[in-house]
Amino acid sequence: MKIKTRLTELLGIEHPIMLAPMDIVADGRLAATVSAAGGFGLIGGGYGDRTWLTRELAAAGDARVGVGFITWSLAKQPDLLDLALERGPPAVMLSFGDVAPFAIPIKQAGALMVCQIQSVAQAVEAVEQGADIIVAQGGEAGGHGVSRGTFALVPAVCDAVGSVPVVAAGGVADGRSLAAALMLGADGVLAGTRFYATHEAAAVISAKERIVAAKGDDTIRSILFDIARKNVWPAPYTGRVLMNAFAERWREREAELMQRPDEVRRYEEARAADDFETAAVIAGEAVDMVCDIPSAGEVVERMARQASVLLDGATNRYKTG
Amino acid sequence: MKIKTRLTELLGIEHPIMLAPMDIVADGRLAATVSAAGGFGLIGGGYGDRTWLTRELAAAGDARVGVGFITWSLAKQPDLLDLALERGPPAVMLSFGDVAPFAIPIKQAGALMVCQIQSVAQAVEAVEQGADIIVAQGGEAGGHGVSRGTFALVPAVCDAVGSVPVVAAGGVADGRSLAAALMLGADGVLAGTRFYATHEAAAVISAKERIVAAKGDDTIRSILFDIARKNVWPAPYTGRVLMNAFAERWREREAELMQRPDEVRRYEEARAADDFETAAVIAGEAVDMVCDIPSAGEVVERMARQASVLLDGATNRYKTG
Repeated sequence: MKIKTRLTELLGIEHPIMLAPMDIVADGRLAATVSAAGGFGLIGGGYGDRTWLTRELAAAGDARVGVGFITWSLAKQPDLLDLALERGPPAVMLSFGDVAPFAIPIKQAGALMVCQIQSVAQAVEAVEQGADIIVAQGGEAGGHGVSRGTFALVPAVCDAVGSVPVVAAGGVADGRSLAAALMLGADGVLAGTRFYATHEAAAVISAKERIVAAKGDDTIRSILFDIARKNVWPAPYTGRVLMNAFAERWREREAELMQRPDEVRRYEEARAADDFETAAVIAGEAVDMVCDIPSAGEVVERMARQASVLLDGATNRYKTG
Repeated sequence: MKIKTRLTELLGIEHPIMLAPMDIVADGRLAATVSAAGGFGLIGGGYGDRTWLTRELAAAGDARVGVGFITWSLAKQPDLLDLALERGPPAVMLSFGDVAPFAIPIKQAGALMVCQIQSVAQAVEAVEQGADIIVAQGGEAGGHGVSRGTFALVPAVCDAVGSVPVVAAGGVADGRSLAAALMLGADGVLAGTRFYATHEAAAVISAKERIVAAKGDDTIRSILFDIARKNVWPAPYTGRVLMNAFAERWREREAELMQRPDEVRRYEEARAADDFETAAVIAGEAVDMVCDIPSAGEVVERMARQASVLLDGATNRYKTG
């Protein structure tokens, strides 16, 4: 009853389901839980806090987990890659930036290089740089990304990269997503938002409850929150978050917000206080399909089981003689 | 070997594939060709040119085709609906606006009411108004739309509308799209861009060739072209088109363009001259998968065949014991 693809073969996993290396939220425990359930957990190396990363690599114990980095941030402190590689991870994932400086050390350490891209052109470039797995991330995704939609991006990337396995990201929440991704030509999926609303995710319960309550119609892709937390990203990246009072007030007034240090200060305070009417909860359009807060292992199992049933039933469900 | 769904049952068609009622481009001949091949053709009633519509309804002959309208435009000349209903179409499709004034006449004429929506909230509202079929259109789509991606919108809409069949639109170009849409819970697909690049589409060959040559990375969703052709749409609708020199020059300068009658005049001239470095070619992110200009019947057959093979092979391709 298992779904076997080139991704499961390459990573040596049971289900073609990867955890998005969400900054802070995807810690050692969450990544280890996803891997223990047969998926592939990735610790969110994020903006690169050495103390945090050291601790979370240790917290993952002997679980087979990877580490994901924000590439342009990693370029500022490349020694963090060495820290991750010392652990001998099966794979390192790089998102948002030029992977060229990191390909050789990753390969020399015997890890697979997973490159997340947002356009066909980036996919082709990543493969030229030696990507072993491409994550094609649609604009539905929570957090940083660009705007192309998953549904047309995935098959186009599959056509463009030849034999390199492609993983669909952005809008992935259940077994329907996984079965659909396979039909589009992908070899698996990567999910963030769905794993955010699990027991093991390193986030406060009120943030998880907001994800469960939220509607996919009510997310926004914007740079507002990067401005508010003084976290400047290079173009063309923007971040998708749940709408809240802060976003309602400041949307389409980015330039004005940049000149309001009082608002930036207030935003910092809200983050510290878990006040999510100001501070952003980072989540994608898949929130509609996130209706509970189970364990991450349960998420992996459900997703695999539902996809399996759909794929199994495809012939009977849709065909006449 | 046929794919049978609630959509094929309801519309009495062979393949769950609908033609998007593209303004002007989806004329009587194109719609009739799609229906003859076993899909469901819809004439693009668009902004409502009575002479054009009368002619194209006649041109479709006795083919079983529907008619699609831009709802907010139809509200300004509701008698066009009567014109369409006189023909006894199996279905009328309404996109972009309040369908309430039209539900009763459509039903009384014995036609199905197909409502295209761009959010879950709109889907729920359309069903309350009596929609028989919901087309869930993701922002990947060419032409007018909004921004939610097809991949997460479709399953969310399926969950929200209960027993009403859902058709996926936006990013649909081949059998992979169709098979994936079914896995997401949809009962079929609606395609525009793919049918634009066919023999029968009512467009000049140079526009079709641009679609074949274009990359999905190079489309833009914007109001630039609506400004340039003095065609004001209500919020939140924007239109996706292929990037060209005009879009490069004016993007993010919408307010400035509004004050440039010389540019508007030049745009009109470019449209008349088929100069597509200024005039827009309306197309979606699925252009990557549009690599030739076959007949529209061939498109329907290929799409159905490829989806059929994918669904048939799902068990064998992805499962181990």
